[in-house]
Amino acid sequence: MENDRIHNPKSSMSLLVVGSVAFDAVETPFGQRPRMLGGSASHFSIAASFFTDVRLVAVVGGDFGPSEEDVFRRHNIDTTDLERIPDGNTFLWRGRYEYDLNVAHTLETQLNVFAGFQPKLSEGSKQARLVFLGNIQPDLQRGVREQIPNADLVALDTMNLWIETTRDSLQKTIEVVDLVIINDAEARQLADEPNLIKAARKVLSWGPRGLIVKRGEYGAAMFTKEEYFAIPAYPLEAVFDPTGAGDTFAGGLMGYLASQEKIDEAAMRRAMIFGSVMASFNVEEFGTERVQRLTYDEINQRFREFKRFTHFEEIPFERAVKAVQ
Amino acid sequence: MENDRIHNPKSSMSLLVVGSVAFDAVETPFGQRPRMLGGSASHFSIAASFFTDVRLVAVVGGDFGPSEEDVFRRHNIDTTDLERIPDGNTFLWRGRYEYDLNVAHTLETQLNVFAGFQPKLSEGSKQARLVFLGNIQPDLQRGVREQIPNADLVALDTMNLWIETTRDSLQKTIEVVDLVIINDAEARQLADEPNLIKAARKVLSWGPRGLIVKRGEYGAAMFTKEEYFAIPAYPLEAVFDPTGAGDTFAGGLMGYLASQEKIDEAAMRRAMIFGSVMASFNVEEFGTERVQRLTYDEINQRFREFKRFTHFEEIPFERAVKAVQ
Repeated sequence: MENDRIHNPKSSMSLLVVGSVAFDAVETPFGQRPRMLGGSASHFSIAASFFTDVRLVAVVGGDFGPSEEDVFRRHNIDTTDLERIPDGNTFLWRGRYEYDLNVAHTLETQLNVFAGFQPKLSEGSKQARLVFLGNIQPDLQRGVREQIPNADLVALDTMNLWIETTRDSLQKTIEVVDLVIINDAEARQLADEPNLIKAARKVLSWGPRGLIVKRGEYGAAMFTKEEYFAIPAYPLEAVFDPTGAGDTFAGGLMGYLASQEKIDEAAMRRAMIFGSVMASFNVEEFGTERVQRLTYDEINQRFREFKRFTHFEEIPFERAVKAVQ
Repeated sequence: MENDRIHNPKSSMSLLVVGSVAFDAVETPFGQRPRMLGGSASHFSIAASFFTDVRLVAVVGGDFGPSEEDVFRRHNIDTTDLERIPDGNTFLWRGRYEYDLNVAHTLETQLNVFAGFQPKLSEGSKQARLVFLGNIQPDLQRGVREQIPNADLVALDTMNLWIETTRDSLQKTIEVVDLVIINDAEARQLADEPNLIKAARKVLSWGPRGLIVKRGEYGAAMFTKEEYFAIPAYPLEAVFDPTGAGDTFAGGLMGYLASQEKIDEAAMRRAMIFGSVMASFNVEEFGTERVQRLTYDEINQRFREFKRFTHFEEIPFERAVKAVQ
């Protein structure tokens, strides 16, 4: 895989992710994995590693072994700031999906070393140009953001737990980031507004330049103060394990942005497509298994397919009629 | 409005719709209408009338008055085959929407004259080039289809009731149409398959050339044996009354196709956009009120906006990186 990588010297240390590294135990109607690499920072960093160099800030326990470390090493992910607590255990999530795969039932959550996670940034990490604050307690997210005041772009993910229990802190954190990347239900809950367009307007009024809303099988939408952009999802016949799809989307999106010298609307739009492409691969196999094996040809092929299945000619009606007459 | 219409002599008698004409009594959190023009054929034909000449096959009772007739007349909709039963009452539907507007609660259904509806086609109607079989009993749909064997394109809508109670007849009808236009849940139920892509493949295997899946606020998707096309919905801040959105979508889509000499993939894609545009206007006010007042400028403006909020540049990743290096 590394031979297939195109290294970009300018992008070194360009993308930092803070989040969870975990063991996932997943059951779906199609099979199960009792213990595999998971967590927001894992899914994010592996997806992003196809586009840029990534640094990971997370914590693991003594049960985190060489085979897991090796996944990061093979993807050239810098684990300097991956804290190891030898006498603790790694965050463990056990979940089960029903036949339609849209709802995950959490069977067990063992926070373990993640319960006391305090992100510690080395000097190298503080130079990051882009930062992704994965779904952790919003005070911790804000603490990281404040240590990287000069980043070009800081994005944040969150979840219903933090919206419900730490709303004020979460809003304060959103006020100091550039981009919020959350799902449909979270956007509505966060803004306390069932209409997504109004919800987006409200979140943007708090300060961020952009809000990206993930809609699973329905695609994704991006709101800025000036523009709106929406895409359908890549059509998949076989969805196998949706775990980590959202973080893989964010990883592809932020990784692609990190590879771009100029982060403008056009780059953001392409980044949405690359994020969707990476997420589409993620759900085709368990955990990070499919994404780990990806090639650039496969990524670019789906990018091109996106263009093909969303393209239409801009011919307003009047002209069409005149052509017939 | 008629002054704003661009007449196309070639399209006379080009589009026929068979369905319900009704009185709707609708309550939403934003207001109510105790009695307004509704029904699948009404919504469809008014939307389609902006693009082509439409003939309507339906039945009404003695309570259907001059003001309702006048709506059809003003939109140049041919009501030769609108059957009047003076001693009966028109189909009445009473419904209520919750705050999120996604679920309609049916409070009352009085089929009235619609219970005995037997579509009767005049000679003019049998010359239709395009036909839309609105959501009625599938035996009746097939009876109409057989009377117009030379139509260029016959499309069909249906609903959960017919999928549950007349599945065999419905499948026989689907076998003899060109296009199925249904919503997301109906497509999955019809194919008995939760994955939409697999569901589409199954429905296409029965014979139709295309399946169009309406997804409400998430947009729409079109499946043919060779191609896939998907679009998001037009973003709306104020959804007022979703009644008839699906039929308005179909009306815009089929009306646009009727205006085109060549119904190819490119025309179908543009038709999907025009259908979405018409549906986006429909839900902004009660019943057909907003669509009745539409201008071509308004329609084309939203068509152009669709292009703007779905466009991205096709630059695969390798090239992007090389540009940076």
